[in-house]
Amino acid sequence: MKEKILTTSTELFGRHGFPETSIQDIVSSNDLTKGTFYYYFKNKEDVLVQIHEQFIDLLLAGQREIMESGRTYREQLAGIVGMLIQNIRTNANSAMVFFREMRHLSEEKTKTILPKRHEFQRNIAHVLEEGMKAGEFRSDLRADMLSFGVLGIANWSYFWYDPDGDVSEEELTHIFMELIFKGIEGDHHDR
Amino acid sequence: MKEKILTTSTELFGRHGFPETSIQDIVSSNDLTKGTFYYYFKNKEDVLVQIHEQFIDLLLAGQREIMESGRTYREQLAGIVGMLIQNIRTNANSAMVFFREMRHLSEEKTKTILPKRHEFQRNIAHVLEEGMKAGEFRSDLRADMLSFGVLGIANWSYFWYDPDGDVSEEELTHIFMELIFKGIEGDHHDR
Repeated sequence: MKEKILTTSTELFGRHGFPETSIQDIVSSNDLTKGTFYYYFKNKEDVLVQIHEQFIDLLLAGQREIMESGRTYREQLAGIVGMLIQNIRTNANSAMVFFREMRHLSEEKTKTILPKRHEFQRNIAHVLEEGMKAGEFRSDLRADMLSFGVLGIANWSYFWYDPDGDVSEEELTHIFMELIFKGIEGDHHDR
Repeated sequence: MKEKILTTSTELFGRHGFPETSIQDIVSSNDLTKGTFYYYFKNKEDVLVQIHEQFIDLLLAGQREIMESGRTYREQLAGIVGMLIQNIRTNANSAMVFFREMRHLSEEKTKTILPKRHEFQRNIAHVLEEGMKAGEFRSDLRADMLSFGVLGIANWSYFWYDPDGDVSEEELTHIFMELIFKGIEGDHHDR
């Protein structure tokens, strides 16, 4: 039941926005009584917190698995970007709510979520740093700034990419990894 | 007066969100009467439309200037990314409102703004395509997908970059253009 309420609320927040959605809307969409709602959640903000936590926890778990896979840093980075692109199809609503409704969480609530968002970014920076040490990546650019560039490429896709359009997730990940690894000048100067 | 109302409203929408800001809030922050407000704007949505239009028109004008400068496509692309990064300091609130509150515009209102957003992206794709034809960029990757990657790197900065932190706009643009032009493998394989 809790999962069902979280799923419906994510849809409602995604479609109408957090402030515009009432507890009554959530209750009606689930054929519940308010009593049942309050059995699982303290208030509407509590629902938003749990949507955020589920979303970031899922991505952090996937990231951890990739980073512990023993693959090259190049493959780890491609794995993380690929995971984010794949995630658009399965978690579009959660992502929209995640990116857009954060500010509706009180400072106290964001204390549990912001560190997780930072962890995800720092893990990417870590893969870049280790890849630099291992000689897989160039080491003359700041890994932290590059990690924001990589995250930007991947996260921005949530705003424009249609997984059912004419570019598959695999193709998009391939194009983005070529951009990230080799850049758009490519081998031009060597040809 | 109209400019002043737009500036204050951008601040209020940026800080509290569009739904949470009332016309009364806007009026109070400007020491106006509601009559004056309605002299310049039809309603609150009208303010949001004009903030969006100002923001995108400014960026499109800057982009056009860069694209008509006769510079190489490489320099044009760096110019566009640099403009977006520079814009964070001067237009942080407008950008936040632009990226986040779009969905509060009715379909009819977005009809004037969405084509402009697409124009900005298509212009980047155009610079990439022309650069491919001119042999400045590799031509084996889709220019439209690459344009979203470039936009993602630059636009994501609005969410995390602090222009007063330890990386200047020039440094960040340099790092991002190295990423975009050469990639993180850099010259490694040639060394």
